[in-house]
Amino acid sequence: MPKGVTPKSQDYRKWYTDVITKAELADYGPVKGTMVIRPYGYAIWDSIRESFDKRFKETGHVNAYFPLFIPKSFLSKEAEHVEGFAKECAVVTHHRLMEGPDRSGLVVDPDSRLEEEVIVRPTSETVIWAMYKKWIQSYRDLPLLINQWVNVVRWEMRTRLFLRTTEFLWQEGHTAHATYEEAEKEARLILDIYREVVENVMVIPVITGLKSEAEKFAGAKHTYCIEAMMGDKRALQAGTSHNLGQNFAKAFDVTFQTEDNRLEYVYATSWGVSTRLVGALVMVHGDDKGLRLPPAIAPHQVVVIPIGKSSEEIRVALDYLDPVLSALKDKNRRVHIDDRTTVTAGFKFNDWEMKGVPLRLEVGSRDIKNGVAQLVRRDTGEKVQISKEKLVDEINYFLEEIQTSLYHQALDFQEANTFTADSYEEFREIIEGKGGFVRCGWDGDPETEERIKEETKATIRCIPFDENPEGLNCIYSGKPAKHEVIFAKAY
Amino acid sequence: MPKGVTPKSQDYRKWYTDVITKAELADYGPVKGTMVIRPYGYAIWDSIRESFDKRFKETGHVNAYFPLFIPKSFLSKEAEHVEGFAKECAVVTHHRLMEGPDRSGLVVDPDSRLEEEVIVRPTSETVIWAMYKKWIQSYRDLPLLINQWVNVVRWEMRTRLFLRTTEFLWQEGHTAHATYEEAEKEARLILDIYREVVENVMVIPVITGLKSEAEKFAGAKHTYCIEAMMGDKRALQAGTSHNLGQNFAKAFDVTFQTEDNRLEYVYATSWGVSTRLVGALVMVHGDDKGLRLPPAIAPHQVVVIPIGKSSEEIRVALDYLDPVLSALKDKNRRVHIDDRTTVTAGFKFNDWEMKGVPLRLEVGSRDIKNGVAQLVRRDTGEKVQISKEKLVDEINYFLEEIQTSLYHQALDFQEANTFTADSYEEFREIIEGKGGFVRCGWDGDPETEERIKEETKATIRCIPFDENPEGLNCIYSGKPAKHEVIFAKAY
Repeated sequence: MPKGVTPKSQDYRKWYTDVITKAELADYGPVKGTMVIRPYGYAIWDSIRESFDKRFKETGHVNAYFPLFIPKSFLSKEAEHVEGFAKECAVVTHHRLMEGPDRSGLVVDPDSRLEEEVIVRPTSETVIWAMYKKWIQSYRDLPLLINQWVNVVRWEMRTRLFLRTTEFLWQEGHTAHATYEEAEKEARLILDIYREVVENVMVIPVITGLKSEAEKFAGAKHTYCIEAMMGDKRALQAGTSHNLGQNFAKAFDVTFQTEDNRLEYVYATSWGVSTRLVGALVMVHGDDKGLRLPPAIAPHQVVVIPIGKSSEEIRVALDYLDPVLSALKDKNRRVHIDDRTTVTAGFKFNDWEMKGVPLRLEVGSRDIKNGVAQLVRRDTGEKVQISKEKLVDEINYFLEEIQTSLYHQALDFQEANTFTADSYEEFREIIEGKGGFVRCGWDGDPETEERIKEETKATIRCIPFDENPEGLNCIYSGKPAKHEVIFAKAY
Repeated sequence: MPKGVTPKSQDYRKWYTDVITKAELADYGPVKGTMVIRPYGYAIWDSIRESFDKRFKETGHVNAYFPLFIPKSFLSKEAEHVEGFAKECAVVTHHRLMEGPDRSGLVVDPDSRLEEEVIVRPTSETVIWAMYKKWIQSYRDLPLLINQWVNVVRWEMRTRLFLRTTEFLWQEGHTAHATYEEAEKEARLILDIYREVVENVMVIPVITGLKSEAEKFAGAKHTYCIEAMMGDKRALQAGTSHNLGQNFAKAFDVTFQTEDNRLEYVYATSWGVSTRLVGALVMVHGDDKGLRLPPAIAPHQVVVIPIGKSSEEIRVALDYLDPVLSALKDKNRRVHIDDRTTVTAGFKFNDWEMKGVPLRLEVGSRDIKNGVAQLVRRDTGEKVQISKEKLVDEINYFLEEIQTSLYHQALDFQEANTFTADSYEEFREIIEGKGGFVRCGWDGDPETEERIKEETKATIRCIPFDENPEGLNCIYSGKPAKHEVIFAKAY
């Protein structure tokens, strides 16, 4: 099945889709723009999900479930939010099918038209704040720190697996607070959880910062984000955390009684990461042989391939490895044994390389005779012979090593492709030529930002927290820079 | 907030809704028939979900995610399935909103009408079998053992929280096999997992058996089920497992090459349990003070209430308990400390009784002086004073004890309300009078089944695996019984 992929250098876009499909991460669904997340891809997402969920819970958040369906009228409530969102979405207008007149199939029953159309959630602020209005009366009810892991729908015309699909999976956190400062602290806390998981678990280096007004979430006071560089040097927004101020509380009239008996609008945040992170994982770490997974989230950290054609040979090899496999299991290592007799060892090698398993452990009859086994790193392709006694330690060592090494490869790539520019000409040359991030001055004017976007397709990815605008001039207008920003073309 | 509920004996239906809302398990959503699962209710569902998921994985199943949207035409493919399902469902006809002509709100953009309407999944057999057609070629690809945890939608007119809502959460397993026998084995394996979790973890006794032809899943060869008795003596179908034979494979033309090179249609199963199990939990174990949760799935197994008005008093009590709390944590006991100073201890007692926490641990200044603490069982209300040294052991003992005791209470209730009947008159008296399960003979004729349903509203809940029809006559026709069955009114 996995016959190899289009080389990255030849056609990045095709390479990406090849890896996704040949590693069996996902497939297109029957309705245009929808995606099937296959078991291997889902296991990766589940692993990412658990990493976040654990940290959300440790910081006092709880999970809940809000309905898929939102009354159309709700989307009209928060004016800015409507502008930014409500346009392309799935609209439910009827609730019944019936046998067609010619009995050739099903048709929509015209009598089942809904009084008010219902929208499939593109995000849940509106429905959640309608409930918060019921649940929040007093300062005693705050803070309210709720998250949900759900599917959302935004009707997309041009789709790409994991990166942009009509339906995708995500988590959306929605919190309510008594003060602006608390909401601000929450938005930053979550951003730090996002950064920590993406950098330390998924080993994707990110830039943290603030979105410009033009790029922020519709309805937010401000939006924080983590931005990562993909293998084609484009930026991918990997997570956002919004301080919503009192906007949604005002739109849904959610007030609370303060400790000193005043009535005040509630302060809010919302934040999300999605299955697009799986796409990021592919684009940052993948190579021409397929996926390369960081051990911390790989569904299988080690794949064991007993060399041999008969089930007898395979059994002997597995017996030989038995104490090693037990010891790995005791240490909670995720080990997969590929004991298929219906495919060749060569097929298995390719298959698991495509699927990005960090370490391959091979054992053949000669290895058994010599008391050794062969260990192959997916990230470098390096093959080492290890004595049986040292296997457990070496496997643990290599898994740590691969986790670190993948991070440094990605960081080196990001750093090598992040540039400064002294003139707009130089800026354009970078953006339109070799590509990458450009770190430069910006005069803070949305007009400037818009012109640059029109002329080069580059957008302000963020105003990084470590910005230093002092002494810089705007790359476009030449005026003194208000901010140092990161420009790039983005997904 | 939790001011008590309508007594069960007074109005069972109202009691149920009161418990759900006052224990903060769920709330109605803004779109009619939708439900918000609140954090406490979601934590219970999550706990149930994990119990099943662990067992599915241990038996070789993997999770995946299939799209929410199904092309309308797919629902016409499997004829029986259409009959049983496709009628009441959410139909997406448009994909864009726009500002209305008077700028007063949003309207559906008429230009965004979809070429083919899209259905929000009521269940996923059709979309999954369309994918299986792509994925299955050879016996090497079998068995395929996939499950998904998702939301589904069936447009309902009369809804009740958790029991019947337009949208609900569930798992749906869909497996593909090379032989009928394997599919049959799978359907039974899953039924046994269902029984085991519902009986041992949720401590709800169930009857296992086969559905009659009239009650089976549309498109299935046969359907197995677990049926439980609720507190009002009605039956609730708590889980179903279907052997689908080759029906879906034929409808979607899914064949595979056998080991001896023949082409054959694939055999299938599907199976599901849903959030309705949370409703069952309430109805089986709840009492007039609210929920009573089995320790194995309670989000908090023990709630600690330090008695005292000031935060200083509360701190002293918690310091006193510190070694106990550490020891419980080491044993992975789920302990919640209610250190709120904004509400009274009495309020806390009621609150956690309503929420069904199995054990309450109280400590006041006198307890500290005497080196003791008070332990209160939620199931019996029994209060015991325990010396500090023995607390950890006693808590562990009582948690086991409550788990067992709740099961036996429910089993006693089910047994006491399961009857045999010698005549149809007696049958009607039971069904229409005191209520309960009636175990009796049935001649196997769907006509008989239908008449009994019309006349009494009782349906065949299942043909229990331990049936013994020998010597029995049909309760309705008087003919020799083909099966011994369980009749009851059902949710």
